[in-house]
Amino acid sequence: MHLPPQLAGVPSLWRARYETVRRRTLALAEPLSDEDCGAQSMPDASPIKWHLAHTTWFFETFILERMEEGYTPFHPAFRVLFNSYYNGVGEKHPRPQRGLLTRPSMAQVRAYRADVDHRIARLADSVRDAAQAQELGALLTLGMQHEQQHQELMLTDVKHLLAQNLLLPAYQEGALAAAAPAAPLAWQACDGGMVEIGHDGDGFSFDNELPRHPQYVAPFALASRLVTNGEYLAFIEAGGYDDPALWLAEGWDWVRSNGLRHPLYWRRGDGDGHGDGTGDWREFTLRGAQPLDLARPVTHVSLFEADAYAHWAGARLPTEAEWELAARAADVETGWLHPAGAEAGDGDGHDGQALSQLFGHCWQWTSSSYAAYPGYRAAPGALGEYNGKFMVNQYVLRGSSCATPAGHARASYRNFFPASARWQFTGIRLARLP
Amino acid sequence: MHLPPQLAGVPSLWRARYETVRRRTLALAEPLSDEDCGAQSMPDASPIKWHLAHTTWFFETFILERMEEGYTPFHPAFRVLFNSYYNGVGEKHPRPQRGLLTRPSMAQVRAYRADVDHRIARLADSVRDAAQAQELGALLTLGMQHEQQHQELMLTDVKHLLAQNLLLPAYQEGALAAAAPAAPLAWQACDGGMVEIGHDGDGFSFDNELPRHPQYVAPFALASRLVTNGEYLAFIEAGGYDDPALWLAEGWDWVRSNGLRHPLYWRRGDGDGHGDGTGDWREFTLRGAQPLDLARPVTHVSLFEADAYAHWAGARLPTEAEWELAARAADVETGWLHPAGAEAGDGDGHDGQALSQLFGHCWQWTSSSYAAYPGYRAAPGALGEYNGKFMVNQYVLRGSSCATPAGHARASYRNFFPASARWQFTGIRLARLP
Amino acid sequence: MHLPPQLAGVPSLWRARYETVRRRTLALAEPLSDEDCGAQSMPDASPIKWHLAHTTWFFETFILERMEEGYTPFHPAFRVLFNSYYNGVGEKHPRPQRGLLTRPSMAQVRAYRADVDHRIARLADSVRDAAQAQELGALLTLGMQHEQQHQELMLTDVKHLLAQNLLLPAYQEGALAAAAPAAPLAWQACDGGMVEIGHDGDGFSFDNELPRHPQYVAPFALASRLVTNGEYLAFIEAGGYDDPALWLAEGWDWVRSNGLRHPLYWRRGDGDGHGDGTGDWREFTLRGAQPLDLARPVTHVSLFEADAYAHWAGARLPTEAEWELAARAADVETGWLHPAGAEAGDGDGHDGQALSQLFGHCWQWTSSSYAAYPGYRAAPGALGEYNGKFMVNQYVLRGSSCATPAGHARASYRNFFPASARWQFTGIRLARLP
Amino acid sequence: MHLPPQLAGVPSLWRARYETVRRRTLALAEPLSDEDCGAQSMPDASPIKWHLAHTTWFFETFILERMEEGYTPFHPAFRVLFNSYYNGVGEKHPRPQRGLLTRPSMAQVRAYRADVDHRIARLADSVRDAAQAQELGALLTLGMQHEQQHQELMLTDVKHLLAQNLLLPAYQEGALAAAAPAAPLAWQACDGGMVEIGHDGDGFSFDNELPRHPQYVAPFALASRLVTNGEYLAFIEAGGYDDPALWLAEGWDWVRSNGLRHPLYWRRGDGDGHGDGTGDWREFTLRGAQPLDLARPVTHVSLFEADAYAHWAGARLPTEAEWELAARAADVETGWLHPAGAEAGDGDGHDGQALSQLFGHCWQWTSSSYAAYPGYRAAPGALGEYNGKFMVNQYVLRGSSCATPAGHARASYRNFFPASARWQFTGIRLARLP
Repeated sequence: MHLPPQLAGVPSLWRARYETVRRRTLALAEPLSDEDCGAQSMPDASPIKWHLAHTTWFFETFILERMEEGYTPFHPAFRVLFNSYYNGVGEKHPRPQRGLLTRPSMAQVRAYRADVDHRIARLADSVRDAAQAQELGALLTLGMQHEQQHQELMLTDVKHLLAQNLLLPAYQEGALAAAAPAAPLAWQACDGGMVEIGHDGDGFSFDNELPRHPQYVAPFALASRLVTNGEYLAFIEAGGYDDPALWLAEGWDWVRSNGLRHPLYWRRGDGDGHGDGTGDWREFTLRGAQPLDLARPVTHVSLFEADAYAHWAGARLPTEAEWELAARAADVETGWLHPAGAEAGDGDGHDGQALSQLFGHCWQWTSSSYAAYPGYRAAPGALGEYNGKFMVNQYVLRGSSCATPAGHARASYRNFFPASARWQFTGIRLARLP
Repeated sequence: MHLPPQLAGVPSLWRARYETVRRRTLALAEPLSDEDCGAQSMPDASPIKWHLAHTTWFFETFILERMEEGYTPFHPAFRVLFNSYYNGVGEKHPRPQRGLLTRPSMAQVRAYRADVDHRIARLADSVRDAAQAQELGALLTLGMQHEQQHQELMLTDVKHLLAQNLLLPAYQEGALAAAAPAAPLAWQACDGGMVEIGHDGDGFSFDNELPRHPQYVAPFALASRLVTNGEYLAFIEAGGYDDPALWLAEGWDWVRSNGLRHPLYWRRGDGDGHGDGTGDWREFTLRGAQPLDLARPVTHVSLFEADAYAHWAGARLPTEAEWELAARAADVETGWLHPAGAEAGDGDGHDGQALSQLFGHCWQWTSSSYAAYPGYRAAPGALGEYNGKFMVNQYVLRGSSCATPAGHARASYRNFFPASARWQFTGIRLARLP
Repeated sequence: MHLPPQLAGVPSLWRARYETVRRRTLALAEPLSDEDCGAQSMPDASPIKWHLAHTTWFFETFILERMEEGYTPFHPAFRVLFNSYYNGVGEKHPRPQRGLLTRPSMAQVRAYRADVDHRIARLADSVRDAAQAQELGALLTLGMQHEQQHQELMLTDVKHLLAQNLLLPAYQEGALAAAAPAAPLAWQACDGGMVEIGHDGDGFSFDNELPRHPQYVAPFALASRLVTNGEYLAFIEAGGYDDPALWLAEGWDWVRSNGLRHPLYWRRGDGDGHGDGTGDWREFTLRGAQPLDLARPVTHVSLFEADAYAHWAGARLPTEAEWELAARAADVETGWLHPAGAEAGDGDGHDGQALSQLFGHCWQWTSSSYAAYPGYRAAPGALGEYNGKFMVNQYVLRGSSCATPAGHARASYRNFFPASARWQFTGIRLARLP
Repeated sequence: MHLPPQLAGVPSLWRARYETVRRRTLALAEPLSDEDCGAQSMPDASPIKWHLAHTTWFFETFILERMEEGYTPFHPAFRVLFNSYYNGVGEKHPRPQRGLLTRPSMAQVRAYRADVDHRIARLADSVRDAAQAQELGALLTLGMQHEQQHQELMLTDVKHLLAQNLLLPAYQEGALAAAAPAAPLAWQACDGGMVEIGHDGDGFSFDNELPRHPQYVAPFALASRLVTNGEYLAFIEAGGYDDPALWLAEGWDWVRSNGLRHPLYWRRGDGDGHGDGTGDWREFTLRGAQPLDLARPVTHVSLFEADAYAHWAGARLPTEAEWELAARAADVETGWLHPAGAEAGDGDGHDGQALSQLFGHCWQWTSSSYAAYPGYRAAPGALGEYNGKFMVNQYVLRGSSCATPAGHARASYRNFFPASARWQFTGIRLARLP
């Protein structure tokens, strides 16, 4: 992982950040009962309680166990119960059975969090030298970034859980504000060329964003905004789920064998959750079932659906390099990003603001398989299992979603999920030739 | 169902019984947290909270909905959420997803129970005539018997849940008392002949115990007690799980494909729950992991294991008619039950006490497939789904277990489970020629 | 097994029978190509070539290996390749992969048959004494009965195979003769009482038909003929496959999860095999697709379907004892079988012919789970695996079918299949109170 | 597809090639019986007979149906039976049931081939103009390339089939010649830089090799030869299959859940095919079981195994661009390919021969997910399903194997299979930093 060097030697700064991150995790669990926090709706999702404990396990295992003098574990069994996937740490409680861990209780998990927080603070106070400060800072930062990732998962997982219940309970009260009408879709062209891809600068990044490396990108154009619910509904109504010519072969098998007809949380009709009615569409949200807002970006679609939609719309999904390039251009005035249709290369008068909804709405599927950047090397030891071992049969998503913690995302960030995943806040941004 | 006639017209008696049964259900949940009560360890088991709600749903659906004036449901969705398997009542929440019902909360389910209890009491107060009293008495009695069945399931289901947890938490505190040494196994012979099988007398019975009917039973002998852990361990140590000649073909496939080597809750070694050690045997119980008590009856074995053990021991499992006959004889001094080896028919000096552990230890597998008695007719309507539709591919168990509520069992009682079921308190009583 | 004593010491008689049986097996394969003989349509079915080899393996393993001087196997690998389920003989080629045995070729399997036939004849010539003649006679008889069972399976298995092919090829040429109109269904009453069930007399029987034993049977009535296609079609048209109240719970799950709407080989419409048309019904037969003959007995139905039909028709399935009793009565004029409605016990003027279609049409599902008769003991050694180890989760069928070899069936014969099996010639005879 | 322009207007040339290709397909089936040709060992593989028919169906469907005057199908059902995966053509016989098509017979399929060959020849004779010649030439070429792909599949599929048989029959007689000792592994460095990737020149290519496009490739080194059996055995003996740290997470799950310990066709011990012995290693080949030749390239490994081996060896798999670049360099003397360790860019004295085993041994796994090249467009209509719809969750293999027809491979050729596929002739070439 890449530690921001300015952090080294500023324990007070870590501590403030640490407290903020840890407090927010608990705040996310606030609207939920202990019962809500224990259930696991599917093997891919985890109970809220498990997230609370696992993020704590991460600090205990990778910081306290290494650096705390006279370390003894909070509870020896927690090493197994809350290990997610680190073979280097040892045995793991089976993932599909995380919802069966009614013990430890939520109260015990909160106590676990408090204990580890206390010991982390004590450890930070006792830092002896710059090298140790550097190591602690790097690990704390990684742990905080890790916890932020779980903050997003807590929201996607609890949404999936609540959606299984006929009562369709809301995580938060209050209706969703209606979205402003979507702007007309425009195409932002990019000349491409030899560019640098991957993280740069001083900030934190995960190892999978490195090394920054040269890459050639052919000219392309990117849609100025995400595909809306209304546009996706037109695809459905045009028979999109019935036409194999639009789908990847594996996607078509997936659609057929699962009997799919719409995004994960859409329901048709009278809001009774059965979807067999004929009335209007509704969508289950963290605020409960809501009328489908046609202006909002479509979300909770798989790569298969995103690809079929793009095919139907006469476009394609972007590569992750295209996305990163455009996002960086949108962020930093560069001049080489310009509206499609303008002559290539004139470069004047075009600014990045023309690309909207890059961050904070939905993760955006790319056509790029999740793979190592040239020269990538995983960290030694169990921490090396963080990212590298998942680099097969997954696809990269870029941007961030409404559930991503503020400050967590960046242009080089690589999220990844299997092509059939739908319970994340996943959406569609189109690309095409300029 | 068969209503005890003496109950008709004695609402005060029903109410006392009703309160006792309902209170005991809540008492069983007392040692558990709300988190414990929400989890479902496998599709065959249900969460405690679901049991609390479903037993209440039974009274609401089959009594209040029929008999209460101006009936309105406590919550319309509960009709679906807590319907177990009654197609006649309508839709059902999917059984494998009962553990995802974090709403309603335990508090709401307790309120549901209190509300229904209150309305049942009011209904009992308002009984107008003997016919209505008769109907209400019959349905209340059925509901109470149903709830008692669920009381046993609550214990078997929570045991299964806690066993999935590496912490092996105890439902109850305190070590198990050591069992007294098992008496030597003796054989009680029975002449058989033309007998009556099925419920008789004035007490309650389920429809599957009726009609009482004549049956011919050949002479047989029944083991005086259940097979012990020690005896079953000898079977294991003799290679019982490695010799296909001892097993039914389907049982052998089941043993192999599941890699089974011992009863469900036995663990070998150091008590770490992994069972890969070489030390002594332990058994997970409602009081947590305990040293295996060789004198206690073996329990949590499938029909396949019971049958293989019997084969190995040179015996067989009894039929359900043999068991009922012997149990009745043990209960009522008849003279025709006598130790094997005595001459047939002399009939003197032998009493039923010679058969021990008929009730209150383990349900005893029989070789009898669960089928309708000659002339059986299910009740009309949804209540007819109570028993009859399960009469295929299940085997009858007789007796009762340590988890069966006092007063619930009787000689004619027919419990039934698939041949591979192990999470119930199931044990082995042998039979053979006299 | 029960050897007909009159056979002992008459090798010439065995040899004539042996040749007849073995020749008929080959004749059944005559209309088929080598390609047809190699394929396996599902794990429950076997290729014709495998049947030809396995029946030969049976004689080689259980006779030549025991009794032939200087025995050497025809091919050592055949011991494994053509062992069906005898753990006592050793390893087995995996059942679902029998269709992958393109070697040995059909020619080699024919040579295997000829070699074993030659050695069996030589062995019969060399019999030294009555004891050896007795042993050989018993084993030869068993082997021939075994081969006759496989003769029926060859027809059911090849029918299933051909039905998977869009071309719907016929095993035999020529249209089916139209059945005569079905006689009106009448009810034949039987007083029951204490009767003897199981094989008696001098002829051969399998061990599962023994011991003959006393049993009490309550009065009942049996349908005079099998349920016809026309009657079953009425059940379908009345919504039989849509009403859970008619079905066993496991049967309903089976119907729903497999999307079943009709017997196995029925197809609707234009005969294109897709069953999505709206026209008339057709049925795939050994003579290819044919118009559905409403007068013929319905066949290729599961126990679940048979039970649901009986439920819908206000009747039930017979027990195996009822069936055997009635069949014996129909066979032998006894006087105690009489039309329902006539006074019980008058006994005059009623003959067995009133029960038609007992043999030679369809195997008839009973409500009896396949279990050991009281006092049953399997043979020692591998031959003991013939029947006993299958006595769980299967149901008894009585009678015989159009595919059963002449002379193979008898009143005490117990066929058995799982409740969901449909590829056998299985049909429905109803029973009810007299 | 990309038609070689020099072919246009030279029907006689097509016809010679067509006859050669078609004749070779039949020749590949020559050592096999009709029984061998009908069986299907797994859903991924197809029967030889099906390959013979499907390749013919391709010419009939995509040429005769379009271009033949008065076209009538050879058999209407063949359109469905021998359609592999073209939704645009209509219904398909289910892939896992191809082994059940005992009809049409091999003789009928040969007649089908002859008929289509005759009609193709007649069509070629009747070509009216250059445009028609161009179209016919393009389609014929595609059909021939398609048939060559199936020629390779015939060998991999029949090998897989024969390996399921305890008899381990050989496709060809005679022992394998011992391989010459493997040369020491050397590293060939390549400077990379901006290069063109994808097919160029006049010859045929599939659409997935186009468009040729610029790409930046960082400097790298490629192993001079494939990984040998001996090297792979060292990986096994070092515990490679027991160390999760070497594996992709999905690969580790795959290894564990399938209990894998070695390449697909390796067997340990006494050659009895059970692999439970302790003796030397043997390998099943098209010439039957043979002693494992340590000098030959390891083959029949999955991407997961290839990646784990590379990890263990301190290297990585090449990208497909790296492989193509190096192969092109090896083919055409360019000067920029040089042994690793030599100074970069000196370019002298190094020739392509230094890279051996590029073609004709094993397909070589790359780390590249199978994806569209920038600007890729599938052909319109059903032929567009040839390649594009498979571009997800598959990995590219480069080179060719011992089973690839002569002249079929080229440097830009993109083969692709899922990461777990092992029944193809797949091997390992390592890459690393130069």
